[in-house]
Amino acid sequence: AAVAAVDNARERVARAIKASPSEVYFTSGGTEADNFAVIGLAEANAEKGKHIVASSVEHPAVLSALKRLEERGFEITYLPVDASGRVSVEDASAALREDTVLLTVMYVNNEVGAIQPVKELARLAKERGVLFHTDAVQAAGIIPLDVTDLGVDALSISAHKFYGPKGVGALYIRKGTRINNFLYGGAQEAKHRAGTENVAGIVAFGKAAELAEQNFEKHREHCSSLRDYMMSEIEKRIPDVYINGDREHRHPGNLNVTFKKIEGESILLMLNHVGVSVSTGSACSSQSLEPSHVLTALGVNEEDIHGTIRFTVGDFTTKEDVDYVLENLEQIVARLREISSIK
Amino acid sequence: AAVAAVDNARERVARAIKASPSEVYFTSGGTEADNFAVIGLAEANAEKGKHIVASSVEHPAVLSALKRLEERGFEITYLPVDASGRVSVEDASAALREDTVLLTVMYVNNEVGAIQPVKELARLAKERGVLFHTDAVQAAGIIPLDVTDLGVDALSISAHKFYGPKGVGALYIRKGTRINNFLYGGAQEAKHRAGTENVAGIVAFGKAAELAEQNFEKHREHCSSLRDYMMSEIEKRIPDVYINGDREHRHPGNLNVTFKKIEGESILLMLNHVGVSVSTGSACSSQSLEPSHVLTALGVNEEDIHGTIRFTVGDFTTKEDVDYVLENLEQIVARLREISSIK
Repeated sequence: AAVAAVDNARERVARAIKASPSEVYFTSGGTEADNFAVIGLAEANAEKGKHIVASSVEHPAVLSALKRLEERGFEITYLPVDASGRVSVEDASAALREDTVLLTVMYVNNEVGAIQPVKELARLAKERGVLFHTDAVQAAGIIPLDVTDLGVDALSISAHKFYGPKGVGALYIRKGTRINNFLYGGAQEAKHRAGTENVAGIVAFGKAAELAEQNFEKHREHCSSLRDYMMSEIEKRIPDVYINGDREHRHPGNLNVTFKKIEGESILLMLNHVGVSVSTGSACSSQSLEPSHVLTALGVNEEDIHGTIRFTVGDFTTKEDVDYVLENLEQIVARLREISSIK
Repeated sequence: AAVAAVDNARERVARAIKASPSEVYFTSGGTEADNFAVIGLAEANAEKGKHIVASSVEHPAVLSALKRLEERGFEITYLPVDASGRVSVEDASAALREDTVLLTVMYVNNEVGAIQPVKELARLAKERGVLFHTDAVQAAGIIPLDVTDLGVDALSISAHKFYGPKGVGALYIRKGTRINNFLYGGAQEAKHRAGTENVAGIVAFGKAAELAEQNFEKHREHCSSLRDYMMSEIEKRIPDVYINGDREHRHPGNLNVTFKKIEGESILLMLNHVGVSVSTGSACSSQSLEPSHVLTALGVNEEDIHGTIRFTVGDFTTKEDVDYVLENLEQIVARLREISSIK
């Protein structure tokens, strides 16, 4: 029964990304999928060379895996991004070498929502005989995910971004792609990923992927209209702010705003106090005091980075919620600027 | 709320193994915990040397991690086991060298149930300045797990062996022990294990660990009396059988029996047909046709290995269940022997 339930979930997840079920390998989440893809692809194909190209705004799960590979003799070239947070295909093309084994560029940035030209990058990689992986964790349910159309060799996703449970994810690996295992042991996941399967999590992932597919347009429309409303109201009602990231190629639920001359941390605490959760930097490194590597790559200066807040709207966010946030935000920003020592 | 729930679960799991909560790191299961421990401890402490000692009956999660380390320049010495499946402390002592960095011996064998002299091995390792890890996945809830009394530096456990969900586990790492991360990315688990936490799984693990601790004696007594009854009935009612593994130092729910001159696979299929689940070899390599490395290490010949079945009794097994199995087993074995071509 557990086997059939996992198979069924695999079919549903495969359908959500237009893959074949046999190309979907369940993992313990996006981080494991990213680690698995980056380290597994690089090491399994290292006879081609030990050079990797990545964007400079990748998720820590990719960046840390790359750092690990560097310790093992790989060389990494990081692509710059423009002020909107996007890499250019020309830069990627110039960075690829004879000994490049892997190009890895995320689909949607987790901090500023920038959507990368993944299809064009995948085509470039293919032309140059380089494997292409994309961390598509943030795209779940809101940006079209079609592995065939995108032409990627590997793609990471995470269940909780589909409104499924935390702690389960998947890696798509194109049929015939050589990859080393990342978890070692038993013969689970067609011998590609050892460990007793998180059956309950996987089944929930399957259902979440199915629902996400069904509600794709509704979800997208709901988020983008709320986000656009919030963005324009913030710009209208609060002085000295600017939006980070691309306005067009952007995750429909993401809003990243710099409030000049105040501490984002103070805004966060005061919003928390009235029941609103926002984020400074990325959620994954919330215990870190380092300025965001993403905003740094976008060219935001350090003072402004410390005044930056990320808002996320989702399926359960209402217009009333947004109005409540706007009202409080306006007051909080005004108050903080009054007492601010940064003149 | 999620953070508090995870912290609460960490306290419960810590209590079940007599550790401090800050020494417990959640993983995606026993496999990740074993990979993390073996690779993380060996690589973080490799300046001492690149030699590792392990038992030859370790779980595939440990054996495959060791294979990976071998590819990276480590040398592994495998300790033999006696006919009951146990390693000797003398053999371990003789195998330790100046450049030995890690001794890893499982607490309870998953196939034959043999309980290893972990406390004595940990003491030996400490005397010789070698780190000691034990895969205690099979011990959960039925063999005393006290990391201080055992004196281990690292210990792997898995939630589903505590009757919790599949796909969540934990690694105990003694405070102050140097270990490399295994999953790379965000700052979760005190920066030791990246990835959004499997919150639901972890909370369930906490509850399961608490219940296991409360019901320890009852569970142990229930399983061992049923298992002992089953063992003696099989020996009484079925000719040409023998029990594999130690009779005294043995998991109370484990029964591993060789039925001479029949295929275990045939017994398994016919028992399945009447609704009884058993295992040939280990559950984790059920897709593999290779003879069990554990039974091979015990000195069982290949023909007998193919006639071997593992029965497991647990909390939900009743005396009626066992009687039902015995009745069917007697008939199945008799029938198979009648038609057997192996004379």
